Amino acid sequence: MAYQLIVLYNPPESVTAFDKHYDETHAPLAAELPGLRAYTATRPGPSADGGSAPYHLVAILTWDDEAAFNAAMASEAGQAAVADLANFAGAGVTVLSGPSESAL
Amino acid sequence: MAYQLIVLYNPPESVTAFDKHYDETHAPLAAELPGLRAYTATRPGPSADGGSAPYHLVAILTWDDEAAFNAAMASEAGQAAVADLANFAGAGVTVLSGPSESAL
Repeated sequence: MAYQLIVLYNPPESVTAFDKHYDETHAPLAAELPGLRAYTATRPGPSADGGSAPYHLVAILTWDDEAAFNAAMASEAGQAAVADLANFAGAGVTVLSGPSESAL
Repeated sequence: MAYQLIVLYNPPESVTAFDKHYDETHAPLAAELPGLRAYTATRPGPSADGGSAPYHLVAILTWDDEAAFNAAMASEAGQAAVADLANFAGAGVTVLSGPSESAL
C-alpha cells in the first residue's frame, strides 16, 4: 500500500508572501525528497456556503510505502524541508501521514 | 490545471462501522463519479508527538479541470455520493476543492 504525507496549511497573514515562498522555495525543496512518487499542491477555493476555506494550501506527497516515507523524512532533504516550514508557515500547519490506497 | 476535491472526515464514533461503510458503500459510489482521474483514501496514523490524528480519513479525488469537477458533482452519481454522507459521516466532514498542480 502507498503512503501519503498530507500537509494542511492554515490561512497565512500574507497570501502573497506565503505563495511566493511556497512556490519558489518550499516546493522545490520538498520535490528533492527521495523516493517521492507524486506531489500535488492544491489551493482550495471558498466553501459551498461561500465561507473562506479553513486551509489555504493542501500538499499531498506520495511514496511507495511507509519505509520509503520514513527514509525520505530522515534524509538531508527531509530535514531541510521541515526546517523551512519556520520560514513561511507561522500561521500553523496540520501534518497527517498514513497508508493510502487507490479507490478507483 | 487539475482540480481536486479533498474530504477530511472527523474521527467517527465507531471506526469499525465507518470503515465498513466507507469501503463497501461510499467508495464504490464515489468511484462512479464521471471524469474522475484519481481517487485515494488515506487513513492517517497518530501524529509525530503521539496524539491521535485530527482526521480519520482523507479522500482525495482528482479531475482534469474545474468544469469536469462541477459536472461530476451535478451528476446523478455526484448527488448519490453526497447524499450517502448522511449514512456514515455524522461526526462531521470538511470539504475542500480547488485547482491542483503537480509540484514534482
